[in-house]
Amino acid sequence: MSGDGAQTVCVAFAELVALLAAIFERHGAPANVASILATNCASAERDGAHSHGVFRMASYAATLTSGYVDLHAAPTIVDASPSLLRVDARNGFAQVALAAVKETAVAKARATGICLVAIRDSHHFGALWIDTEAFAREGLVVLAFVNSVKRVAPFGGHKPFYGTNPMSFAVPRKGHEPLVFDQASSAMAFGDIKMAELEGRPVAPGTGVDRDRKPTTDPAAILDGGALLPFGGHKGSSISMMVELLAGGLAGGQFSFEVDRSAYPTAQTVRTAQSLILIDPARVYGEDYEARVETLAEGLRDAGQERLPGDRRYANRREAERLGIPIARKTMDELLALRDG
Amino acid sequence: MSGDGAQTVCVAFAELVALLAAIFERHGAPANVASILATNCASAERDGAHSHGVFRMASYAATLTSGYVDLHAAPTIVDASPSLLRVDARNGFAQVALAAVKETAVAKARATGICLVAIRDSHHFGALWIDTEAFAREGLVVLAFVNSVKRVAPFGGHKPFYGTNPMSFAVPRKGHEPLVFDQASSAMAFGDIKMAELEGRPVAPGTGVDRDRKPTTDPAAILDGGALLPFGGHKGSSISMMVELLAGGLAGGQFSFEVDRSAYPTAQTVRTAQSLILIDPARVYGEDYEARVETLAEGLRDAGQERLPGDRRYANRREAERLGIPIARKTMDELLALRDG
Repeated sequence: MSGDGAQTVCVAFAELVALLAAIFERHGAPANVASILATNCASAERDGAHSHGVFRMASYAATLTSGYVDLHAAPTIVDASPSLLRVDARNGFAQVALAAVKETAVAKARATGICLVAIRDSHHFGALWIDTEAFAREGLVVLAFVNSVKRVAPFGGHKPFYGTNPMSFAVPRKGHEPLVFDQASSAMAFGDIKMAELEGRPVAPGTGVDRDRKPTTDPAAILDGGALLPFGGHKGSSISMMVELLAGGLAGGQFSFEVDRSAYPTAQTVRTAQSLILIDPARVYGEDYEARVETLAEGLRDAGQERLPGDRRYANRREAERLGIPIARKTMDELLALRDG
Repeated sequence: MSGDGAQTVCVAFAELVALLAAIFERHGAPANVASILATNCASAERDGAHSHGVFRMASYAATLTSGYVDLHAAPTIVDASPSLLRVDARNGFAQVALAAVKETAVAKARATGICLVAIRDSHHFGALWIDTEAFAREGLVVLAFVNSVKRVAPFGGHKPFYGTNPMSFAVPRKGHEPLVFDQASSAMAFGDIKMAELEGRPVAPGTGVDRDRKPTTDPAAILDGGALLPFGGHKGSSISMMVELLAGGLAGGQFSFEVDRSAYPTAQTVRTAQSLILIDPARVYGEDYEARVETLAEGLRDAGQERLPGDRRYANRREAERLGIPIARKTMDELLALRDG
């Protein structure tokens, strides 16, 4: 860890992972679980995805001690067919279940061309692109869906019903990092609106409504009895419905509007479900898929889209690998207090 | 066929299919192809999906005689794995290839839980919901993607690159018609903007730009050298990218921006590719999926969303089954001329 002045410290990735893992262990997680969660959160911070980065550590710690998640859950995996894995996270973290099943899932996708991984009774932790990028690095095309807790009014509706319901899509590229998007089905992701609230910033018009169903740009009014809105009107609302039916629905978990965590007031994760569809493009039409993705990427640049989804994260990552991950000293002090307090 | 006045005639579904099939045969389609295309187009008209209905018949006829599509193509099917079907439409219609592979695809999805159907070198005909609803009636969850020809500027870009790139999602419901959405990744579907142009109606702000990249509500200015815009800003643009990579990309077809049909100026279809992912929910977490969909549908109504995706089509269908399909007499005269002319 090295300081570049009074305000910010720069931390190496491995050092940040170790610190976050110590915090998770301090709050009851076994070493393997702490390591998975810490790597996930440190990756988000490293890549500049601050809304899933270290600013969440206090709430993650509170989740661990809330009793809502089983930190010691051993996921069960059923090899249901050549192309289907049923995974029960048994009220543990989705990432722990995903780590347990990853190798088998990749092998199945390569063997048959496609594999569905349905993870039920799970708490999804962190950003979805972290899950999908890892599979794209194995040469696979990936679709992933996770639902959460009701915060988004359906198009034309008047009260929270959908979760922010992200979907992520990732494909391998030839000679480049994978092309990955991860987007909430709401106009704004929950982490981003929470950060706006903390920083006292207004949000864009169209993000949400207050408790009287009036449009507002005040993040606190949206979060306190109001509702987020779907992105893109009725089409985004349909995407959110699809996420519910492919995540909670298909994997046998709760829908966002069914989740009741009132018995665990400090918990920030949600007990729902996740599904992933993995496709081996080489099995479908041959080895040149990654080159075809390059053709599309070049075409997009020629059509005027300068930045591809994920580009900013990779740029931040390269910068962090060179200089370390910048963290405000105040935040670092809070992290150290979480570890030692 | 019975008239209810001077302006409109009401036609039974079977009668309309027969008329449209005769038009397709008159323009060179063999009987089996004519029957598939006619059923598709008549279904759209019956369900009130006019942008894929009979108003397109003149352009469909022109497509058939353009030489762009091989009306006699026999699709080849490769049973590539327990969960993968590679289909080459051999420059024929995607619906003809899909009809040839449907039974096998359903059987594979039921056997392994999931099946990927990748159709290359195909011309997609008509609306995508017609393809997906049919599989949902077999109890399957369906995702479908098709790309087309460049008409949509990517978010932040300045020229047409993506097709209108629809995706469709369908699930079976207990005691109800399937829940189906089918939405263009553009702010407006091509058929709808074409209808607005024909009827001299302006389109909503945000639909597109003119040839100078200035926002416009004039459909003719968008279609003549301008560009459509994605729905929902950068998120809709990412969905459109995903459709390219899952349709043309994965199935080994052309991307929308690569399509050159200048040698076939009267053709209205596009030589690209289509993919479908079929999932048997009963194989994933059991038989109660359709009841779970009902739970979601009831929750949506309670949250204030009165109409579910597809509801309007089903209402139109019931009305048409009772009273016949209403068609303007002028349109009917044009159809008869196409058949006999």
